Amino acid sequence: MALWGGRFEKGVDAFTQEFGASLEVDKAMAQQDIAGSRAHAKMLAEQGIISEPDQQAIDAGLADISGQIANGSFAWDVNDEDIHMAVEGALTRNIGTPGARLHTGRSRNDQVATDIRLYAKELCSHLMEGNRSLRRVFLDVAEKNMGVVMPGYTHLQHAQPVLFSHHMLAYFWMFTRDYTRLVAARDAADANPLGAAALAGTTYPLDRQRTTELLGFDHAIPNSLDAVSDRDYLLDLEYACSVSMMHLSRLCEEIVLWSSTEFGFVTLSDSYSTGSSIMPQKKNPDFAELTRGKCGRVYGDLMALLTTMKSLPLAYNKDLQECKEGPMDAAKTLSDCMEIAAGMLETMTVNADVMLDQARRGFTAATDVADYLAKKGMPFREAHRVVGELVLYCEKHGKGLEDLTADEFRAASDLFDDGIAADLDPEGIARARTTYGGTGHSAVAAQLEEARAALAAAEA
Amino acid sequence: MALWGGRFEKGVDAFTQEFGASLEVDKAMAQQDIAGSRAHAKMLAEQGIISEPDQQAIDAGLADISGQIANGSFAWDVNDEDIHMAVEGALTRNIGTPGARLHTGRSRNDQVATDIRLYAKELCSHLMEGNRSLRRVFLDVAEKNMGVVMPGYTHLQHAQPVLFSHHMLAYFWMFTRDYTRLVAARDAADANPLGAAALAGTTYPLDRQRTTELLGFDHAIPNSLDAVSDRDYLLDLEYACSVSMMHLSRLCEEIVLWSSTEFGFVTLSDSYSTGSSIMPQKKNPDFAELTRGKCGRVYGDLMALLTTMKSLPLAYNKDLQECKEGPMDAAKTLSDCMEIAAGMLETMTVNADVMLDQARRGFTAATDVADYLAKKGMPFREAHRVVGELVLYCEKHGKGLEDLTADEFRAASDLFDDGIAADLDPEGIARARTTYGGTGHSAVAAQLEEARAALAAAEA
Amino acid sequence: MALWGGRFEKGVDAFTQEFGASLEVDKAMAQQDIAGSRAHAKMLAEQGIISEPDQQAIDAGLADISGQIANGSFAWDVNDEDIHMAVEGALTRNIGTPGARLHTGRSRNDQVATDIRLYAKELCSHLMEGNRSLRRVFLDVAEKNMGVVMPGYTHLQHAQPVLFSHHMLAYFWMFTRDYTRLVAARDAADANPLGAAALAGTTYPLDRQRTTELLGFDHAIPNSLDAVSDRDYLLDLEYACSVSMMHLSRLCEEIVLWSSTEFGFVTLSDSYSTGSSIMPQKKNPDFAELTRGKCGRVYGDLMALLTTMKSLPLAYNKDLQECKEGPMDAAKTLSDCMEIAAGMLETMTVNADVMLDQARRGFTAATDVADYLAKKGMPFREAHRVVGELVLYCEKHGKGLEDLTADEFRAASDLFDDGIAADLDPEGIARARTTYGGTGHSAVAAQLEEARAALAAAEA
Amino acid sequence: MALWGGRFEKGVDAFTQEFGASLEVDKAMAQQDIAGSRAHAKMLAEQGIISEPDQQAIDAGLADISGQIANGSFAWDVNDEDIHMAVEGALTRNIGTPGARLHTGRSRNDQVATDIRLYAKELCSHLMEGNRSLRRVFLDVAEKNMGVVMPGYTHLQHAQPVLFSHHMLAYFWMFTRDYTRLVAARDAADANPLGAAALAGTTYPLDRQRTTELLGFDHAIPNSLDAVSDRDYLLDLEYACSVSMMHLSRLCEEIVLWSSTEFGFVTLSDSYSTGSSIMPQKKNPDFAELTRGKCGRVYGDLMALLTTMKSLPLAYNKDLQECKEGPMDAAKTLSDCMEIAAGMLETMTVNADVMLDQARRGFTAATDVADYLAKKGMPFREAHRVVGELVLYCEKHGKGLEDLTADEFRAASDLFDDGIAADLDPEGIARARTTYGGTGHSAVAAQLEEARAALAAAEA
Repeated sequence: MALWGGRFEKGVDAFTQEFGASLEVDKAMAQQDIAGSRAHAKMLAEQGIISEPDQQAIDAGLADISGQIANGSFAWDVNDEDIHMAVEGALTRNIGTPGARLHTGRSRNDQVATDIRLYAKELCSHLMEGNRSLRRVFLDVAEKNMGVVMPGYTHLQHAQPVLFSHHMLAYFWMFTRDYTRLVAARDAADANPLGAAALAGTTYPLDRQRTTELLGFDHAIPNSLDAVSDRDYLLDLEYACSVSMMHLSRLCEEIVLWSSTEFGFVTLSDSYSTGSSIMPQKKNPDFAELTRGKCGRVYGDLMALLTTMKSLPLAYNKDLQECKEGPMDAAKTLSDCMEIAAGMLETMTVNADVMLDQARRGFTAATDVADYLAKKGMPFREAHRVVGELVLYCEKHGKGLEDLTADEFRAASDLFDDGIAADLDPEGIARARTTYGGTGHSAVAAQLEEARAALAAAEA
Repeated sequence: MALWGGRFEKGVDAFTQEFGASLEVDKAMAQQDIAGSRAHAKMLAEQGIISEPDQQAIDAGLADISGQIANGSFAWDVNDEDIHMAVEGALTRNIGTPGARLHTGRSRNDQVATDIRLYAKELCSHLMEGNRSLRRVFLDVAEKNMGVVMPGYTHLQHAQPVLFSHHMLAYFWMFTRDYTRLVAARDAADANPLGAAALAGTTYPLDRQRTTELLGFDHAIPNSLDAVSDRDYLLDLEYACSVSMMHLSRLCEEIVLWSSTEFGFVTLSDSYSTGSSIMPQKKNPDFAELTRGKCGRVYGDLMALLTTMKSLPLAYNKDLQECKEGPMDAAKTLSDCMEIAAGMLETMTVNADVMLDQARRGFTAATDVADYLAKKGMPFREAHRVVGELVLYCEKHGKGLEDLTADEFRAASDLFDDGIAADLDPEGIARARTTYGGTGHSAVAAQLEEARAALAAAEA
Repeated sequence: MALWGGRFEKGVDAFTQEFGASLEVDKAMAQQDIAGSRAHAKMLAEQGIISEPDQQAIDAGLADISGQIANGSFAWDVNDEDIHMAVEGALTRNIGTPGARLHTGRSRNDQVATDIRLYAKELCSHLMEGNRSLRRVFLDVAEKNMGVVMPGYTHLQHAQPVLFSHHMLAYFWMFTRDYTRLVAARDAADANPLGAAALAGTTYPLDRQRTTELLGFDHAIPNSLDAVSDRDYLLDLEYACSVSMMHLSRLCEEIVLWSSTEFGFVTLSDSYSTGSSIMPQKKNPDFAELTRGKCGRVYGDLMALLTTMKSLPLAYNKDLQECKEGPMDAAKTLSDCMEIAAGMLETMTVNADVMLDQARRGFTAATDVADYLAKKGMPFREAHRVVGELVLYCEKHGKGLEDLTADEFRAASDLFDDGIAADLDPEGIARARTTYGGTGHSAVAAQLEEARAALAAAEA
Repeated sequence: MALWGGRFEKGVDAFTQEFGASLEVDKAMAQQDIAGSRAHAKMLAEQGIISEPDQQAIDAGLADISGQIANGSFAWDVNDEDIHMAVEGALTRNIGTPGARLHTGRSRNDQVATDIRLYAKELCSHLMEGNRSLRRVFLDVAEKNMGVVMPGYTHLQHAQPVLFSHHMLAYFWMFTRDYTRLVAARDAADANPLGAAALAGTTYPLDRQRTTELLGFDHAIPNSLDAVSDRDYLLDLEYACSVSMMHLSRLCEEIVLWSSTEFGFVTLSDSYSTGSSIMPQKKNPDFAELTRGKCGRVYGDLMALLTTMKSLPLAYNKDLQECKEGPMDAAKTLSDCMEIAAGMLETMTVNADVMLDQARRGFTAATDVADYLAKKGMPFREAHRVVGELVLYCEKHGKGLEDLTADEFRAASDLFDDGIAADLDPEGIARARTTYGGTGHSAVAAQLEEARAALAAAEA
């Protein structure tokens, strides 16, 4: 259906038509397009711009098409440039003249903006749900493994013992922030462009508050030029997805590390592992790797749209057609990856013994030894130096700090008491960090409660 | 000052030292570092961890250093790796042992996170102020030029006449959204990591709520691992800057177009123009171009940090040192560019006659002619075709629609009345678009009022 | 077909299977996969690793599958994880045990690297062909419009008159550089990884030079770890596409400008224009805009793969599965866009009168007036100042330089002769720039010849 | 010095001046600017455009300024917008009228392009040298550690034993490819824009081949519009840096892993480690992490310039001013990081025992057991399944494959002979992979020789 037939003398050939078309991508937004048209027609009739019978014919006709698309029986025509023409064309073929009245006081410019905004709101809601599910898994894994001690790392070097649950909760809070970004993206999308027409509004007495209400938007956009040229909300969505994929890349990096022979901290379920076509022993953390790798894809989607938007004059430009696929891809990728991550975490086996064993290595008690001296009055900087020398002594003699005798300790400083070595157990070291946000058991239990409350609030 | 002296046997040479150092970048955050240390020491004393006299010595010593840095008399030592060591080293040199007690229950990991967060909050506040100033300029320019009619564009083709003020207000709303993103970035930064120590909290009875209060943070971060490894708020800041630079690139693209001989819509002030070293006649919109070009710089800053964060395991990694320069550069760039844009807009001359003249060209009345037919009962799709043929007729005969006789109109459709040509004045066409958000004079006046209220709310 | 069945106890469910699978993307490389397998089997037989009859059965079986895939009759099984398993599975079902011997001395790691490299080489060759076609169009358009004078721009301000052909040739040279990048990308892909097996080579006496020869690679990759983990050549391909899309974005920006009412320099063919659903007069340069917008998509593809590759340890990681779609998308996008650009250029009408008329405006003769004075002995800097003041005088009196009397000229400097105004015709000004690379007619004619020779060399 | 004074009535204030200025960045190119001017003046005199005495005065004056800049005595004036004005201004102050003749037949547009190209060529040459040095280190480390066996990884899982030297050589080849990209970037820069003037060439009888020769460029650019608007070579440079930083990020990721307590494969020199301000035992691979993190910075530089260039119409636009800092930053970053990497590699201790011990774990012999069966006639796919079940058996019984009795092997397949367990030593497994590019000792020795020859060719 060539809707602008009057102006043109020549046709466009198949290649250029396919190049310019967006129908394949648009299909995802078919129901949003129909919902927008039904609301528009209803308002037109209420305002007396089209007749009641015309509106009823349009509404029934669109409901038919909606059903056909939903059940797969709709006959798509590859000659339709986009979803708007596909739907309107079918409507007019089915119901005749009333169909040709639907586009009154409307342009494809405000129509497509409406469709995308409705669709983006759904994507955000879906991602918010996936985010809550994943956060629930972090809480469950944290709760289930309460008390498991692992080495805490900085610079991938053993630093101090921490609770595995504390580590899981760190991710909970990252995804809590991601939730805030998803809500912001949904809020940014939640504004009604319908009625902006091509760019300037129209001379028809449209009631934009009415379509706002009918379509469930928060408010009508106050400027028609902005209404047809703004795609910020899609950037917001892609950005929210990007940061969340970055968080997943960090998690998956750790899962890959933890699954290695050298770490051995977790064993992934067979359901989240794959083998090798040549090496019979392999059990690879493919899903973690693939999730990590897909971080690039979503960053790319963000960069693509930022680039496309750069330097575009107002108002609508065809460049904007490129703004649809990226956000859809970013949202699907994040949704899939959150589900994969949740499944991996839920089904993996935590090897507590291995973690605890490693938590003893790498002099993870050194800070506490320095604090021990500082609490006895030695300035911390000096205590730090003393313990640094003790560690060097241990390394040269192949010992751990816990292996030193009281005399060896006292050779470094006479502030050490006899019982010092007994204080160097990783479990006890972790337990002692009880201030707010610390890794001590009591602090982590309180944190878990705070996290459960935060999630409950998001689910309310 | 080599703070970790005990552990090492060899020194580092000058090149590696410079490579690893961040002092030059850190200097921007010197006052934040000192503020954080003063709050930490005060809390330590209140909790009985250090003595009152020690705290007083520390506080006075830090106040001294703060003053020296502010007035430029502080003696920076290039051997200091970072701002933390520079300040603490000077303190200890100045006041002796109490200085060595400052770092009790603290690590550079939570210290640097505190500094950056305090600094990021200030950057956001500063950008919010610049954003409000720029929005005020859009409102003033819109108000000052109320009634000026220009061609509205889609696809850079003349579409329909719009008010220049309407066009300016479109930008107002873009920057209003940017303000929301800046607020979100500031809120994301507004959480206290101090007390997380290296990664796990400490065994000292720190009062994290107290430092939260002293430093003006909204709340303490509930997880110590997250506290030292989270840099999301800097991404939020860079993202907010990126979208805002994208908006500026759109504005500056238009200013460059409008300043061209072909458009001639505006004349930039000499203060915002430059000449050529070879072509004596040139008056170039350099500042608009440079602002447009700087969009790339800020996108690059965002992409840099997203890349750096990808796949980092918990908790602190030295990679994070790379997170400082980018946000500082992005914020400075946006701040400068908003100021430049505001100055350009305030001082440019709007050539209303040229705009109006162009608004008559390109058949900008065609939609209204089609609506005319539709309002007389012809389905819109048919009216669209009829007018398309009229335009083709005009092009072939070198006429505008307003030049056609009533008979020529009626040759296309007998629904046309005699007075049709009189309705095709751009000013009248714009005026008729009175629904909410439209470009009609009354609608734009109402919009201006809504915008003033929105800005006033942000300024409150 | 679950090829690693022995190791696993549980299955994977449909979602994780789909998440991990790459079959849909891989299908594009089916023929490359088969070619690689046929070469591998042939070499295995020649080396006595498999029997001749086995090799013949494999070869015939693979030829069958190749034919089926080519004619669309191949029965794809969604349970196949990737193209390698799909093909090998079908082979083994069809020919039995010999099929199970195909994977001897090979891993999917070197197999997929071989497939992608063969495929990337074809993509590059295809793009090189498209690039040559587009360059031919620039030459044809330049030749066809020889002598057409337009305003040359800097800062989008009229600078000096140039030949339209000169402008077209500027693009010719950009795409000539792009050709070099495409050749570099193809050369980077042109190395044989087959025989690297999983990562370490194998204990079978493979002849890697033989498969190199059979598959038409330039050489065998000298390190097996590198062979399975290198994807640089795909980055090279995406980078070449990115720069070329950037060049297209510059061209399309100009076409959009030139098609505007204000410029009116070209009229696009109806075949490369579209209309509006609401505005009957619109004839939009949609294809130029869409091409410009797609620049973002390709930048995004590049950034995605750069991100994915960051920080990956050796050797193969599943993250690499993400490296296929991006380059395919980038190559298809560039290919399509070059074809669109060629069509647009070939069919557009150049409005020589409009260009010439504009070339007179904006004081484009000012440099030549300054040069006139400089050639009479005035230092250029002083001449520049004198002419700048003349321009200001003209602006205040609403004149062009060509409208000034000899006396008015002489009021500025007595070096001016009576005939000065006659030298200010844009056509003459352009013609006088005859040095190598200049816009003078003779220089452009020579340049066109040089360009034709460069293209002929690329086509040889 | 305001060079375009005639045209303007108002001044620009300090803020806009600083915003528009590029002097600080330009200073790096001061010598290139002077070299370009000296060559230009020499050619002007040879062509009779300026007098010999004028040229001699210019040449001597510029030599003076060059010396002052080199020795730090040049008095920079912050009022100079860029390096071109700073140098020309000083020249004219020093030598009077002849200085005002230097800019004859030249524009800042071709001047800045000349400066940047000369500078970019030097950056490339410098990076090529650094690349060769780093490659030499890979060869030395490979040679020094010949025979050290480590676990080879895919998916970070133990796959098959490989030689550590083989692993080092994989990086050698990556950086060999990077060298090719650097050469391409230098070649792209190696073309002379001087003589293009503002955009169109000039009417002066310039000899562009002469300045090409004097400045050591490969050829003169054949199109003046392209000459002033092309910055592709800077993208090429940034892209080459990006890929090389990606390779460094992979290397540094491995160094960080290898330095962990869990891996323990290498011990970094104290010179390439740092400590913690709180944890006395820490010895962090800071330099590896920082290098890895700086990958983002260089990607950002690339994305910035790609964005800036998007959609720029011809010819010169001020946006291009933004093209200088990014490439300088990217080149400095890569240069520093290559030097750091070389130092780290040269000074690190390889813990051969730890590597060998790990090479035994994770069933790294499994492929060879499957090959064993395949060589006895069992189809490889079946052998793979049999060994997969053996591995599962081992895991359940806490054994390695080398711990199984011949009977246990034969329970899986009666093709196993008694001596099978003896063949499972990692050193022997690696040694057996002798085909071209494999990890066998003989193959790696040959590869090392090939690599030495490749490096020697690059150094020739």
